Amino acid sequence: MENTLTTKPHVVIVGAGFGGLEAAKKLACEDVRVTVIDRTNYYLFQPLLYQVATAALSPADIAAPIRAVLSKCRNVEVILAEVQSVDVEAKKVKTVDLEIDYDYLILATGARHSYFEHNEWEKLAPGLKSLEDAIELRRRILMAFEYAEKITDEAARKAAMNFVIIGGGPTGVEMAGAIAEISRYTLAKDFRHIDPSQARVILIEGEPRLLAAYPQDLSESARKQLMDLGVEVRTSTRATNLTEAGVQVGDEFIPCRVKIWAAGNNASFVGKTLGAPVDRVGRIIVNDDLTTPGHLEIQVIGDLANFSHQTGEPLPGISPVAMQQGRHAARNVLAMVEGRKPQRFRYWDKGTMATIGRNKAVADLKFVHLRGRLAWLAWLFVHIIFLVGFRNRLLVLFQWAWAYFTFDKGARLITRNFQSETRPPA
Amino acid sequence: MENTLTTKPHVVIVGAGFGGLEAAKKLACEDVRVTVIDRTNYYLFQPLLYQVATAALSPADIAAPIRAVLSKCRNVEVILAEVQSVDVEAKKVKTVDLEIDYDYLILATGARHSYFEHNEWEKLAPGLKSLEDAIELRRRILMAFEYAEKITDEAARKAAMNFVIIGGGPTGVEMAGAIAEISRYTLAKDFRHIDPSQARVILIEGEPRLLAAYPQDLSESARKQLMDLGVEVRTSTRATNLTEAGVQVGDEFIPCRVKIWAAGNNASFVGKTLGAPVDRVGRIIVNDDLTTPGHLEIQVIGDLANFSHQTGEPLPGISPVAMQQGRHAARNVLAMVEGRKPQRFRYWDKGTMATIGRNKAVADLKFVHLRGRLAWLAWLFVHIIFLVGFRNRLLVLFQWAWAYFTFDKGARLITRNFQSETRPPA
Repeated sequence: MENTLTTKPHVVIVGAGFGGLEAAKKLACEDVRVTVIDRTNYYLFQPLLYQVATAALSPADIAAPIRAVLSKCRNVEVILAEVQSVDVEAKKVKTVDLEIDYDYLILATGARHSYFEHNEWEKLAPGLKSLEDAIELRRRILMAFEYAEKITDEAARKAAMNFVIIGGGPTGVEMAGAIAEISRYTLAKDFRHIDPSQARVILIEGEPRLLAAYPQDLSESARKQLMDLGVEVRTSTRATNLTEAGVQVGDEFIPCRVKIWAAGNNASFVGKTLGAPVDRVGRIIVNDDLTTPGHLEIQVIGDLANFSHQTGEPLPGISPVAMQQGRHAARNVLAMVEGRKPQRFRYWDKGTMATIGRNKAVADLKFVHLRGRLAWLAWLFVHIIFLVGFRNRLLVLFQWAWAYFTFDKGARLITRNFQSETRPPA
Repeated sequence: MENTLTTKPHVVIVGAGFGGLEAAKKLACEDVRVTVIDRTNYYLFQPLLYQVATAALSPADIAAPIRAVLSKCRNVEVILAEVQSVDVEAKKVKTVDLEIDYDYLILATGARHSYFEHNEWEKLAPGLKSLEDAIELRRRILMAFEYAEKITDEAARKAAMNFVIIGGGPTGVEMAGAIAEISRYTLAKDFRHIDPSQARVILIEGEPRLLAAYPQDLSESARKQLMDLGVEVRTSTRATNLTEAGVQVGDEFIPCRVKIWAAGNNASFVGKTLGAPVDRVGRIIVNDDLTTPGHLEIQVIGDLANFSHQTGEPLPGISPVAMQQGRHAARNVLAMVEGRKPQRFRYWDKGTMATIGRNKAVADLKFVHLRGRLAWLAWLFVHIIFLVGFRNRLLVLFQWAWAYFTFDKGARLITRNFQSETRPPA
């Protein structure tokens, strides 16, 4: 069977996120050979990462092994590797230990955080793009309370219970709401020397309103709902410096141990190696049909792409965009294999939503704007539907139901990096 | 309320494992002040660690936040800290940043692995005592298959698919069975260039039989059930050397990437600082009533204690022993507080069990020995009952049922340590 396969056109998909996975699923069992390359072995449902970071869900609840998702059709294989560059002339992708030829290439490596030229801030204020990010944030958030409980120095205790989130987009809003919730509800009875509900949660956003990409009324509603939870919202505000001790905001210094970065995206590095035109944050400016200038065999999708042909502005880096582009790129490949031309892409905007806490959310469904409980239920529904795998849906549904009725968040583990145990504690 | 509490006798419990937690629960809401000190924030159900290591369960499924378990009674508080020594004269325990006075002390810090004077083997062959161990083992096991899939060198591929487990007690038996299962069932369809069912699983045990502490017939049954799964069982065999490349066993060198340590225990370091008599592996030799010689106010329980008064041999380091001792130590404290004497301890042995795989296990219930499916069902039942927390029981039951009917193990994540993303891949 391998011999027959090697004569078919070879499609290489780099990145098994929302975009890459949809492309792979659409090419599965078709008359092509597909190789999916990802640097992790799982597909991550990023919209729920903030729930891992705030101890509501476990990592495995929001991730599925890529191989399991793609095991059915023999024409699809998966390689765990990190692509470092693309050789456009030779039509190869290069990883540390392998070079892989392609006939068609779909690049879907996504985005990572931008620290606005302050890369040294990254260790101080982790972002929320990967499971490792989420686990590290969870550790820092829970450790802050553990530390505050132990010490007696009033100033240090206050600083430990200040949480600063930088960036008022959906991620920042969701993190702020979730931290406010665990400190006011979940952890309320757990401590004896501190009152977790006295924790300050401060959300900083450079634009004049939160959720700047959303309709005005929903921005306002999100702000109000956050303030109901006790979150301090500061718009038109930028962090000018970050140190171990806290965050400098204009003239004010906010002492805090835990700083969370939810601002600014840069496209992944791989894009630059294509030699195609890129925008200010590194996204590749694609053609109307997702192909790259001069190379119809290369398509770029998801957060790595700058697609401005529809509205004049680049489409936002959200999962529905990536998924629709992934399916479209796959259709283009099948067309080109049969000698037809790739079609132009149009995004069908069904709306966006962001959640703040129990019964608190905003949802822009185009024909209607929802707030509060209704938006929250819509948010739950959509996220469960798109969560990959029936098993994961049941697990998540159960844990959400449990948390809703008991306020208990069950995934409150602080796990450290693996370290040697044979030596006595220093 | 704090003032009234500080006049009550102060009981310090070091270690919130099976023993420490049972002691704390028995003292909760009694007329004493209790401080529980643990170096993690969760209580770990160790018997199911091997399921995290083999991707069947997530870490949070087998752990519960200590604070949540002990939040109800205000006389109990929890401190996250690592106790380094005990000052017996001054009646204090010392951690890195705190010193805590006690009137009564219960030491329950457990055991860690012994590498028989070869501490350098620990990095090569992790053990299975903590969540970090389990997550690291899981990573290594899954990465071995990912690596084998990618490479073309036949010898390296074979080595990647050899798994050597050192130690044929319950942990080793369970790990061997679970790895055999995932390679023969769960991962069967996931790869294109390797056949995971061709993986070799080799279990090495120094004694003449597996489960040396179990009755002879159950040892034999365990061996047979493992061999049915394709595990190579080698008894009366010891590893003489471990290197990156593999394991030296007498004259034979077994090339393998993944080596798992399930042999040998040492008691935790803290015990030595007591100044009490210790045995060969560092366990404190306790009195008939769990107190230490010359210091009735100090009791030692669980894997840290050598209690030989009942059978002439030390009681095994298993959870039922620790739990019964924990409750007994608490009763002793309450007696001593009222001016009465501590009572002698007697272990009520209800039996032991070890699981091998689907429908495969052995159980010694004293009045009867079970094998195969019946033992396996008994094992499931007992472990669900003792898993802390109703929520965790439901989660685990669901995942077990799912895995049983679909052979799918859902927790197949490879997560790495947190690392900076702003620099390009090297």
